[in-house]
Order: sequence, then C-alpha cells, then structure tokens
Amino acid sequence: MNEKDLYARKIVDKMMELDYFSQWMGVEILDVKENYSKIQIAVRKEMLNGFAITHGGITFALADSAFAFACNSDGRITVALDVSISFPKAGREGDIFIAEAKQIATTNRTALFLIEIKNQHNELIGLFKGTCYKTEKKLGVG
Amino acid sequence: MNEKDLYARKIVDKMMELDYFSQWMGVEILDVKENYSKIQIAVRKEMLNGFAITHGGITFALADSAFAFACNSDGRITVALDVSISFPKAGREGDIFIAEAKQIATTNRTALFLIEIKNQHNELIGLFKGTCYKTEKKLGVG
Amino acid sequence: MNEKDLYARKIVDKMMELDYFSQWMGVEILDVKENYSKIQIAVRKEMLNGFAITHGGITFALADSAFAFACNSDGRITVALDVSISFPKAGREGDIFIAEAKQIATTNRTALFLIEIKNQHNELIGLFKGTCYKTEKKLGVG
Amino acid sequence: MNEKDLYARKIVDKMMELDYFSQWMGVEILDVKENYSKIQIAVRKEMLNGFAITHGGITFALADSAFAFACNSDGRITVALDVSISFPKAGREGDIFIAEAKQIATTNRTALFLIEIKNQHNELIGLFKGTCYKTEKKLGVG
Repeated sequence: MNEKDLYARKIVDKMMELDYFSQWMGVEILDVKENYSKIQIAVRKEMLNGFAITHGGITFALADSAFAFACNSDGRITVALDVSISFPKAGREGDIFIAEAKQIATTNRTALFLIEIKNQHNELIGLFKGTCYKTEKKLGVG
Repeated sequence: MNEKDLYARKIVDKMMELDYFSQWMGVEILDVKENYSKIQIAVRKEMLNGFAITHGGITFALADSAFAFACNSDGRITVALDVSISFPKAGREGDIFIAEAKQIATTNRTALFLIEIKNQHNELIGLFKGTCYKTEKKLGVG
Repeated sequence: MNEKDLYARKIVDKMMELDYFSQWMGVEILDVKENYSKIQIAVRKEMLNGFAITHGGITFALADSAFAFACNSDGRITVALDVSISFPKAGREGDIFIAEAKQIATTNRTALFLIEIKNQHNELIGLFKGTCYKTEKKLGVG
Repeated sequence: MNEKDLYARKIVDKMMELDYFSQWMGVEILDVKENYSKIQIAVRKEMLNGFAITHGGITFALADSAFAFACNSDGRITVALDVSISFPKAGREGDIFIAEAKQIATTNRTALFLIEIKNQHNELIGLFKGTCYKTEKKLGVG
C-alpha cells in the first residue's frame, strides 16, 4: 500500500467515526484507495419499504457513503452537488449490498464519480452518478 | 375531501404500516391526495454523516418516500426507475425536513414527479426529480 | 426594467452573437432577467430523429441554451456540470418549443436551475434540472 | 457477425435514413451490435456555443443518438424516459467525438444504458446515463 492510499484509509476511518448514519446501516469498509472506495451492508428488516423491498433511500445512502469516502480520500473536504441514481433491480431482506465508487473525471474544483451497487449474486441493484465540489478546506488527520 | 383523495390516504396508510425504514425515520404524513403527498421528519443525530450534517441518504430517502406515496396513491403499484437529486443546502441535527411531491406529467405507463425538500425556515435542502413505472398490479385496500 | 435586467439582456445578446448552434436552431429570445430566461424555437424537419419526432438532442439543446443564458446573466462565466432531463411527451415538426429557465437555489460557487420546455399547447415536453459552476471570470460587455 | 448483430445493423441503418438531425450532425456509425452502438461526429463551427466550445446540446445529441440506436437494436421501439449527463471537459471545433453506448441492465419493459463520449485524445467529454421504456411495437425491416 502506498502513502496516498494509507492516507486515504486514515481519512475514511476518521469520517466513519462520526458518520452515525453509516454506522446505523452497518457499513463495512472493504477497500479504500485515493479516489476509490468499496463498502458493504447487509439489508435488515428496518431498511425495507412498504412493498417488502429495500427502501430506495438505503440503496442511495450506501452509494452516497461510498461516494463521500472516495471524494474526500485526498483530504480536501468535498460536497455532493448533484446525483442521479437508477434502480434496475430490487433488494430484499438478507441481501448483501456492495457499493464500489470510482472517479471517472476531475477538474480543479469538481469531480465525477460512478458508483455501482451490486448484491451478493453480482446483480446490479443501483447505478449512481455523482458530481461533487471540492472546497479548499482540509480534513485534519494525524 | 373527495373519494379519490380518501382512497389515496388509505393506500398511503397501508404502505406506511409496512414501511419500516420510513417508520425508523419518524415520517409524519402531513397531507395526501391523488398523485400528491407532503411528509416530514425531524433530523436526529443518527441521521448525520461524518461532517455533522444530514447524510444525503436521509434527504433522498425522505423524498423517495414522498415520491412513493404520491406515485402509488391511485392504487396501481409503481416502481421508481430513475431519480436525480440536487443538494443546494446542508441540514443539521434538529432540523425539520418537509418533502412535497407533485406529479408533473404522466403517460400510460410512466409518470414524472418533482419533490422539493425544505427545512423549517423554508429553505430548499434538496430538489428531487423522479420517473416511475406503473405496473398493472393493484394495491389492495379495504 | 431595472439595471441588472438590462445588463442581463446585454450579456445574453453578446452570447447569442457567437452561439452558432443556437442560431442554427433559430432561437428567439422572449425574455431575459437576472438569473432568468425564456426562449423559443420552431421545430424543423432537420430536427427530427428516425421516428419522425423531435430528436432528444434538440429539446435538450434548447433547454441548455436557456440554462446558459440564465446562468451567465450576472456576467460571471459559468459552466454546466451535471444535468438531468425527462421527456414526458414527444414533439413534432412545426411545433413551437418554449423553454423557461429559473434559478432555484444558489451558493457561492454553484447554482441550481429548473428549465421547463413546453409546446404551443402548453404541454410539458421536457423537464431539465441543471447544476452549474460559477467561475471568477467575467464576461465583458460594453 | 451473428444474426442478431446483423439485424441490429439493419435496424440502425433504417433509423439513420430518417434521422435528419443525426444526418445534420454528420453521424458516422462505427459499430452496432444488439444493445450496443458506437458512433462519431466531427465538431463543426455551427456546433459551438457563445464561448467557442461545443454546445452541450451537441454532446447530448450525439450520446442520445447512440442511446437510441443501441436501445432499438432488437427491433422493439423504445423511448427515452429520463437521462442524466455530466460534462467533465469541453470540446472545440475540429474535435472528433466518439460515443459508445452499452446496456447495463434490463427488465421486461425498461433498460438502463451508459454512454461515454470521448474526444480524439480519449478524454472523457460527457458521461450519459439513460433509462428507456420498451414498447410492444416493432420496427419493420426487410
């Protein structure tokens, strides 16, 4: 692991410490590198909507956490501006959802990420495209 | 209140009964009519992300619940296909978020909704545009 | 007409002068104010796709021009970052398309606009939600 | 080339014949397979906006044509419902834009595509995510 990736991991660990909603979802961090993250949750009963399928807010929130971790992994505080998500397939209680965030393009002040959310059978549950704005503030770690 | 709006309210009450995630969020239903809903939540500590602001997933989930209630209010089961959300302003613990869903256009099988999420100061927190697909299945109510 | 709106009009006239694609589309400027624009085109045969309906790129482009005019109307050069469009209804040759761009929210560096595209019967043809980034460069006019 | 891909090519050739706007853009078809297309244009002066960069409507329209060709390639008439596009980089006169459309997921009645638009230096100009609705009507080809 190189220095930038180690730093990225530190940043995300610090973010996660105070991220009460990701904690509630039971987010597990599988991998973090600069501009990249891979995280997972297990779908619990309290994550379902009135049709006994995963509430869209959960699928979105998982992707949004992966997006935030990947966006902020270089230590510059970023904020999500605009996000689009598609839901090709529903999820069920007991499913494992894995979100993988990759940076697709970047300019000085903004960046574009694509996040895939898949279930334990490698089926696509959600596709999330997000644009974030990079502020000049720094996240302090160690 | 006309018959269609009464029916809409019955549908949403039934959806809400089994919508464990909306229950967890503390969703309160302010108003429901055919193709319309207005709901609110109070932002709790466990809804925050690592920057002490409302997790994007919560803002999205509130809008998504309002969208689902408005979409399904005519009794035909609908599913969200594609959604885009913008986040003009962050939320904080203690904020009240109110989401109002309005149908903008409809075809035989799909419908387009716009959902505004505002805080207690009437400031725009999120703008959600959603397209749903109307199946031929019916939600059964009394 | 106040000074800001007069200035907005000057900016848009200058943009239009060099906007060869808007010229090709036959864009007519109906109204311009600060952070607002209303423009129209007539749908010609060469704007159709293989199904004899208006090519989605034309509907988008009209909205995108309205967006650009409204975004830049305060003289700060802005660029579109992320845009989402829905197509509730198709257009035909001979239709008049009117796009109206309104600013919904703004921060220091970004702004959110909603653009409605309607036809001559006041039917919604497209709904466009756009986020732009405001640079510090100025458009020079008179 | 298998039978389905040959059929896809026939469909797209037929669509292109009547697609006057794609013709105006000078769309060249590089490759077509079932649920896939790759097309290109050269950016001309009349495709620019007031900042001497490619009008967003052109980038969108190219992607939208690639989307339509890929969506309809199985002979079922489909319509675009909701589309989101990001613009990581601007284009200039003389650039070659190549759009590649891939199907990401599909259900009975809808499908999700991702379209990348790159320039001649393989730089990402646009990222387009589109959801379409598949009707039961068939495109007739020979």
